[in-house]
Amino acid sequence: MRVSATVRKVEREMSEFILNLSCPDRPGIVASVSNELYQRGFNIRESHQFGDLEAERFFMRVAVESAASFVSLDTFNESFGATAQAFNMTWRVHDKSIKPRVLLMVSKFDHCLVDLLYRSEIGSLEMDVIGVVSNHEDARERVETSGIPFYYWPVSPETKGANEAKLNALIASEHIELIVLARYMQILSPEFAAQYPDRIINIHHSFLPSFKGAVPYSRAFERGVKMIGATAHFVTGDLDEGPIITQGVADIKHDMNVSDLIDVGRDVERRTLAQAIRLYTQRRILTNGIKTVVFQ
Amino acid sequence: MRVSATVRKVEREMSEFILNLSCPDRPGIVASVSNELYQRGFNIRESHQFGDLEAERFFMRVAVESAASFVSLDTFNESFGATAQAFNMTWRVHDKSIKPRVLLMVSKFDHCLVDLLYRSEIGSLEMDVIGVVSNHEDARERVETSGIPFYYWPVSPETKGANEAKLNALIASEHIELIVLARYMQILSPEFAAQYPDRIINIHHSFLPSFKGAVPYSRAFERGVKMIGATAHFVTGDLDEGPIITQGVADIKHDMNVSDLIDVGRDVERRTLAQAIRLYTQRRILTNGIKTVVFQ
Amino acid sequence: MRVSATVRKVEREMSEFILNLSCPDRPGIVASVSNELYQRGFNIRESHQFGDLEAERFFMRVAVESAASFVSLDTFNESFGATAQAFNMTWRVHDKSIKPRVLLMVSKFDHCLVDLLYRSEIGSLEMDVIGVVSNHEDARERVETSGIPFYYWPVSPETKGANEAKLNALIASEHIELIVLARYMQILSPEFAAQYPDRIINIHHSFLPSFKGAVPYSRAFERGVKMIGATAHFVTGDLDEGPIITQGVADIKHDMNVSDLIDVGRDVERRTLAQAIRLYTQRRILTNGIKTVVFQ
Amino acid sequence: MRVSATVRKVEREMSEFILNLSCPDRPGIVASVSNELYQRGFNIRESHQFGDLEAERFFMRVAVESAASFVSLDTFNESFGATAQAFNMTWRVHDKSIKPRVLLMVSKFDHCLVDLLYRSEIGSLEMDVIGVVSNHEDARERVETSGIPFYYWPVSPETKGANEAKLNALIASEHIELIVLARYMQILSPEFAAQYPDRIINIHHSFLPSFKGAVPYSRAFERGVKMIGATAHFVTGDLDEGPIITQGVADIKHDMNVSDLIDVGRDVERRTLAQAIRLYTQRRILTNGIKTVVFQ
Repeated sequence: MRVSATVRKVEREMSEFILNLSCPDRPGIVASVSNELYQRGFNIRESHQFGDLEAERFFMRVAVESAASFVSLDTFNESFGATAQAFNMTWRVHDKSIKPRVLLMVSKFDHCLVDLLYRSEIGSLEMDVIGVVSNHEDARERVETSGIPFYYWPVSPETKGANEAKLNALIASEHIELIVLARYMQILSPEFAAQYPDRIINIHHSFLPSFKGAVPYSRAFERGVKMIGATAHFVTGDLDEGPIITQGVADIKHDMNVSDLIDVGRDVERRTLAQAIRLYTQRRILTNGIKTVVFQ
Repeated sequence: MRVSATVRKVEREMSEFILNLSCPDRPGIVASVSNELYQRGFNIRESHQFGDLEAERFFMRVAVESAASFVSLDTFNESFGATAQAFNMTWRVHDKSIKPRVLLMVSKFDHCLVDLLYRSEIGSLEMDVIGVVSNHEDARERVETSGIPFYYWPVSPETKGANEAKLNALIASEHIELIVLARYMQILSPEFAAQYPDRIINIHHSFLPSFKGAVPYSRAFERGVKMIGATAHFVTGDLDEGPIITQGVADIKHDMNVSDLIDVGRDVERRTLAQAIRLYTQRRILTNGIKTVVFQ
Repeated sequence: MRVSATVRKVEREMSEFILNLSCPDRPGIVASVSNELYQRGFNIRESHQFGDLEAERFFMRVAVESAASFVSLDTFNESFGATAQAFNMTWRVHDKSIKPRVLLMVSKFDHCLVDLLYRSEIGSLEMDVIGVVSNHEDARERVETSGIPFYYWPVSPETKGANEAKLNALIASEHIELIVLARYMQILSPEFAAQYPDRIINIHHSFLPSFKGAVPYSRAFERGVKMIGATAHFVTGDLDEGPIITQGVADIKHDMNVSDLIDVGRDVERRTLAQAIRLYTQRRILTNGIKTVVFQ
Repeated sequence: MRVSATVRKVEREMSEFILNLSCPDRPGIVASVSNELYQRGFNIRESHQFGDLEAERFFMRVAVESAASFVSLDTFNESFGATAQAFNMTWRVHDKSIKPRVLLMVSKFDHCLVDLLYRSEIGSLEMDVIGVVSNHEDARERVETSGIPFYYWPVSPETKGANEAKLNALIASEHIELIVLARYMQILSPEFAAQYPDRIINIHHSFLPSFKGAVPYSRAFERGVKMIGATAHFVTGDLDEGPIITQGVADIKHDMNVSDLIDVGRDVERRTLAQAIRLYTQRRILTNGIKTVVFQ
């Protein structure tokens, strides 16, 4: 159950955690997990699961609240460790009261940036935007007006390595959890991407795998497609091939030129990226090889 | 996880059940249910839950398979009874290998009927169509060609009571579980409807609560709306007020007249009704007062 | 054909007009209009028409450019007057190079306002926002940062008349063409609305005619609908009954509470209102009694 | 304006034609065409146009009715020839009272076939299905029950040439205008396709240009996309590269396997193909190189 902001405030004396896990599929996982949680005084508010028959792998998301009193994340981590080990789980638990710390990266087109900042501000997306990195100056005023640090880091073939070093430093010092490429038009190196698996979300302005690579709207226009799309995906070293989180589309007509496609595309992009980030902040995405499991 | 037809055949030596339950919300339900299932040798393949904070009521759907050997539905019912009683559950368990027995009712417009028969035939909807009742002769040939009994029962104000008595008899003798009003244009009496709670699905040809009652397309045309819709809902004694299962919409334009709306509406109706029946046959719908909980 | 911003600049030495007209239907209208335009040296770039068979009324939108040299709007008006009179037309011609002057009105929820200001700023909506009127102070900073005058005019039952007098004065002095109620939660008097036929656009946060009036999301939640919507319409003296321009919908699920509906609704509202204003600025909307003709 | 079946019957004493044309763009086309039509006693009921700025080509669709008395198609053709020649038009005029003669081709999956036959039967698609060709026997009973000839022509590498010769003969002898590949899983030779430009419509079961070629649902599953689609396009010698007419999509989830995708895909395919054929029968599609102009 999605609990609204209002309701949640009242419940803050309790702990609320979201547990994500995956492990080799075998009988008894759900019983063990729910038992363990019940024994530790947790009430299960939501639970989703999925068994990949081909990969023989089991995925689960459980949202719990401490029924009686406050429990710290560390305590939870400790207590759950034994169960996790018994099933050879990949797992992580999140405190619902702590918003993910997010770094936004953008180039010239700022429609996704503006949308994400607004959604963050009004609480529609529960994240803390720690900073905005751009290879252009354009967005500075808008970002700084929101009280968010703006880093203007231009990129050239020569400075690319140094730029990624600065990014690494910023991510480390600011404890950034998630990096969002909100129409950041520079390609990050495979080495950089490999450092942050499932932690970089990109919005590609096409309905992947159609129109991988550059200038997808021009290519969509030339091919005469009747719908354009956008794809939010995790970034891996393999360009435009990372696990897809969500996709969106819009109808187009023969009388639209490339500029019109770009205009229509802006709406699809910002909507699709915001949806991906909502799913991320609600801890609904688990990766499964080159795919994602999305619990909605 | 939806398991495909092919995969399911291989698994038929095992029992596969779907358990639907609701009860007053309190800690420990999930743990108790999953424990009970694990102890009895069942593996949980899918599980969904929802806690209605206002109604303080908990809803759950669990799909299980017997891990080792065949278990009968009766055995399952017996073994689960104690847990169910302890939590004051309203519950029902379904054997996945047994398709629901369905009675279709139709008047003159047969687009939903034709679609449902085809989907049933190719296995896209897993139901057994036991018969078709109509107050017109029109659909007889189409139905009988499919090898399904056709009951032509005309309705007038005088024969309405007798007609419902015949329906009751047919439902009883043929062990009908679900009655589908696939554009059946006669109003069933509140007394009749009350006998089959959550067992009669109707497709209303509007986006309820807009345009309740008769001739919704004409009224949509007159009002100049830009979208029309269809609503699949459970039938209660209160006309067009039963719990909504799913809704669909389509765009319309100023140059469409009432006939065009009817034509566009056919697609929305058949799609929306088929989706409602799919949800029903997969045991994904639980009613919650005048609403539904739909686990997708 | 929608002509992109880039292309249009090149063509600016020419005049580009959009002609909207309606008249009693009879043979020869298209021939007369296109002949007249051709004789006066205009090239037809787009043309849409619609004949309402019931109302026996004809509607037309023609986009033209002067083939050879600049023609003023006044010249065009003069030259077209005879044709218009001959067919008893209601008509208006718009210079494409002149953006409509728009007044935005808003209360506390600013998601539509923020979206419209951004779209206006980047040229995605071609309008000049002349000012923003609000009965709350909340939006002041955001509006004034964009360099747009902000009028804080609180409304009480006692001041309502005076408030509308101030509005009238502002609309007159600033030559406002279009008034947009971007979630303005005060009801304008029928007398006020009657002064500006087809010049006030409201976004109602429901799929009209469902949930007319107040708190539609609460009522949608209580009814248990599976989709919510938004409706952009012209304002008349008859509350929520004005001609509908466009409508949008979004799916909702049983686990969403009223706050969630409001959050999902924001996206539908801003998208639907922006689309209505785009149609308006492109002169694609003609009213037809209590309906609209929308040429897309 | 789309005129409903009922209305149209009343108007049958008049002639109703649809004129499709394209030509190099230059001033005066609309004026000349509408004048010519007016002079010949025709009333314009609908008119759409599009100027492709890049190709400098003009496209137009005009629906007319004879205002006073019946005019034959031959008479119309003769009278319009001079105007057409003056503007170097590619053009064709269609009598609205004559339905296109259509040949359906199908392999094993019959969901599109069944849908098209039903829509044709109830008048939702205005076409005459002259015959069904299949390389399998499966659909025979269903087709013959509808009173339509069924041609079982199995195809092997050796018989492919002979098969296409038979097709040519059938198309010629039965005066087939349109060939619809309703999930026909054999590839027609480029030589065959070249004989029928803009007269063969195929439904490809992917969102082209994603997943060109074989087994698109398996490839969509493996890639982990979140939406699948279908594409209706004209067939050219270049496989899956013909002009796109319309596209459709549907959401998919991580718990769907290839069978589920195929099931969901059926709905998208039949809806998309039916829409393409509706556009064709209403003479709304004009090709523009490797694209289409679709007047809606």
